[in-house]
Amino acid sequence: MNTIEFFINNKQNFLNELFDLIRIPSISRHKDSVQTAANWLENKLRQTADYVEQIPTTGNPVILAEWEPQYLEISASSHPTLLFYGHYDVQPPEPLDEWISPPFEPEIRDGRIFARGIGDNKGQFFAHIVAIECLHKLNQLGVNIKLILDGEEELGSPYIDEAISKKQEFFEDVDLVIVSDGPADPTWKPTLEFGARGIITAQFELQTAKGDVHSGNFGGIQPNPVWDLISILKTMKDDQGKCLIEGFYDDVFTPTPAALKAAEDLNRDPEVYKEQLDITYFGEEKDLPITHRLMFRPTFNIRGISSGSVRENARTIIPKEVVAELDIRLVPNQVPEKIKQLVTEHLDRLKSESENYAQILERCEVNFGTSFYPMFTPLELPWTEVLAKSITEGFEEEPLKIPLAGGSLPLYSLYKATGKPIYIIPYAQPDEDNHAPNENMMVEWFEKGVKTSIAILNNLKG
Amino acid sequence: MNTIEFFINNKQNFLNELFDLIRIPSISRHKDSVQTAANWLENKLRQTADYVEQIPTTGNPVILAEWEPQYLEISASSHPTLLFYGHYDVQPPEPLDEWISPPFEPEIRDGRIFARGIGDNKGQFFAHIVAIECLHKLNQLGVNIKLILDGEEELGSPYIDEAISKKQEFFEDVDLVIVSDGPADPTWKPTLEFGARGIITAQFELQTAKGDVHSGNFGGIQPNPVWDLISILKTMKDDQGKCLIEGFYDDVFTPTPAALKAAEDLNRDPEVYKEQLDITYFGEEKDLPITHRLMFRPTFNIRGISSGSVRENARTIIPKEVVAELDIRLVPNQVPEKIKQLVTEHLDRLKSESENYAQILERCEVNFGTSFYPMFTPLELPWTEVLAKSITEGFEEEPLKIPLAGGSLPLYSLYKATGKPIYIIPYAQPDEDNHAPNENMMVEWFEKGVKTSIAILNNLKG
Repeated sequence: MNTIEFFINNKQNFLNELFDLIRIPSISRHKDSVQTAANWLENKLRQTADYVEQIPTTGNPVILAEWEPQYLEISASSHPTLLFYGHYDVQPPEPLDEWISPPFEPEIRDGRIFARGIGDNKGQFFAHIVAIECLHKLNQLGVNIKLILDGEEELGSPYIDEAISKKQEFFEDVDLVIVSDGPADPTWKPTLEFGARGIITAQFELQTAKGDVHSGNFGGIQPNPVWDLISILKTMKDDQGKCLIEGFYDDVFTPTPAALKAAEDLNRDPEVYKEQLDITYFGEEKDLPITHRLMFRPTFNIRGISSGSVRENARTIIPKEVVAELDIRLVPNQVPEKIKQLVTEHLDRLKSESENYAQILERCEVNFGTSFYPMFTPLELPWTEVLAKSITEGFEEEPLKIPLAGGSLPLYSLYKATGKPIYIIPYAQPDEDNHAPNENMMVEWFEKGVKTSIAILNNLKG
Repeated sequence: MNTIEFFINNKQNFLNELFDLIRIPSISRHKDSVQTAANWLENKLRQTADYVEQIPTTGNPVILAEWEPQYLEISASSHPTLLFYGHYDVQPPEPLDEWISPPFEPEIRDGRIFARGIGDNKGQFFAHIVAIECLHKLNQLGVNIKLILDGEEELGSPYIDEAISKKQEFFEDVDLVIVSDGPADPTWKPTLEFGARGIITAQFELQTAKGDVHSGNFGGIQPNPVWDLISILKTMKDDQGKCLIEGFYDDVFTPTPAALKAAEDLNRDPEVYKEQLDITYFGEEKDLPITHRLMFRPTFNIRGISSGSVRENARTIIPKEVVAELDIRLVPNQVPEKIKQLVTEHLDRLKSESENYAQILERCEVNFGTSFYPMFTPLELPWTEVLAKSITEGFEEEPLKIPLAGGSLPLYSLYKATGKPIYIIPYAQPDEDNHAPNENMMVEWFEKGVKTSIAILNNLKG
């Protein structure tokens, strides 16, 4: 029996196992559920792996596993060691009332599995595990495989370096890293990505008074935190989408000719985005072409803001505070710590420029959270061809080659640990709605993912 | 037995009745609870009044009641008819987790009754009812008294005119109107107010896309509604607190010399506000003195804003939408409909000025809600002296005379119906926290309110 047949015959069992994993609501900050998921995974991996270990960290555990080759082809020119990366923590499911089925009770509708974490990232890394198991059961594992499962990716993997430093030898012989995360290209073509943007998050919390007060009785006296924060935020971005923080664009890389060529080959059609997202205009830097804004440029995004109450709960008050959450996507060669420093310097400059800004900022707390470096692997390396061939086998379609993915991953930690090239091969379809209600993954894409992983493991032997 | 003694002897019974009323959670939009409160009040008023009626409206019922004098003093120079106004609907209690005791289970702590609606407005109008009952029981009612209880004040009394038009004759012989609502002056002195600011509310709802999307995968493509709404809002107010909408200040009145004198006599100390509210600077128009901003100037307030999620629920998304709730406090002679028109014209001008604004505003819905006219009664009328004397008797302290209260009331409807002067005498202490968690009214202030109402009814006999 060949490996693909074995997979097809046992598909329902694998899906049942995946559903068991999905039912564990391993939201990053819910330590107990995350630990339950880690234990479940450790047990699962022990069925086939030669080595499995939970590495405790200051945060959630990181899981490591290794499979030694079951045979070595004498004729092979190399015996590479492959590292798969995935993360078993998930985003919070809110807003709950927008879910059609409960977020942690997977349900298949119209060929899609709906559940929080199915695409981001449990369904994707589980495809690797299934592929390994299929080959292992048939004694056909011909390469050395390693796996690292992160427990805090959705918080920015603050302690993955701590785990890696405890097991440095695990990473030393790795030859390449494969990450399956994020959605495939919006054109629905299979996708091979050579890097990802970085990210920093920042929280602005402005409390201008002790309490909410009646907006009539104290209107004109108590300052309004929303207006005041708007004054501050508006100094950081103009109406054309340009970030106004001094030096923000200084380290933005100039894409190499190969990267530019690959980007142009994508033939991005703005109209497709407009229809898919139901948008009538585009965000961020209005003077740049779409492809550049998607992968070669940083962003400056307000991901959430809250003050007082709205809609049926609106009250005639001056709210005491406002909280705004930002995320800033970085491209090579922007450095997270430097960008944080530039934001801080910008605010310091505002303080010295105007008494008005100084008064506001004295009451404003700015806290930085998640931080990922941007990463980029040159398109010219030989792995490109092997991986493209494997994806073509798994998806029965040639992949798009995307120089830089929009999303952010803790790739820099993997790069620091291995010094080796990193590739991203998403197994979730483009409308997976990760980080949103009704997150989902098509069963067909899960299957193609498993087939792709099998092809990679077979093709890397030679 | 004199009236005050009768009140003191029966105080506990009156408080028990007030608590029964408070336990009915008559949040304006909760029709059933509002109707329960209306029925409770109708029964209560029937115990003493000569006429009681619930006037049905498109919204919640308005309650009318009348007490004819039990005797007429032959020597009196006049027999005025007094109209009391109050409202029996309350604000929503959210956020619930900030209440120390449940909002609709009144609890006395440190001499204060804590409950939603105790100060705003049930405890205040109930003081009038108690005063009337005390005089009535002792056969000492010497003036004609009318009462109107609004069921939708917290929504801007959209149907009070409808109720009034059904019973126009009820209002025709009224000589003066007294409203006890809002908190007393922040100096804790008893307060006599000669008018109130008006208000309009406006909701800005900007939906720029079909759904929340991952801020990495779609960053640079999907527009950010928060940045875009900030761009629009920032055209309406500058960093110095001035409203930038053309014509916004055109109809703002010039206070009369008597009003200015009264305002100056208040000797407002900015430092007292800073300490009371824990603020380090002031809101709205930074170039004007405090007293003017509190009562002679309009405001332009953002009372709530929401997009995406914040704090522990923050996710790395581009939110699909943002909602901002504004309230604009008006002063004489600003007209609500005209101000709405100016806002609309401002937005139309933005659309024609820039493609960028036009694209944003095409996706933005602006809805106006509550609308109250500003109102102002000249300080020179003879009622001023009678009312000041009565307050001095009730509170054992001379009242502050405040030309214009900060809050808004449906006074214009009462003015249209009666054509007579309107006075506001708050019975709630300054830190009643109306519209906020842990709303409360001091028992002592309730008692002084009852005594003041008794004094008014005695002194108006002439």
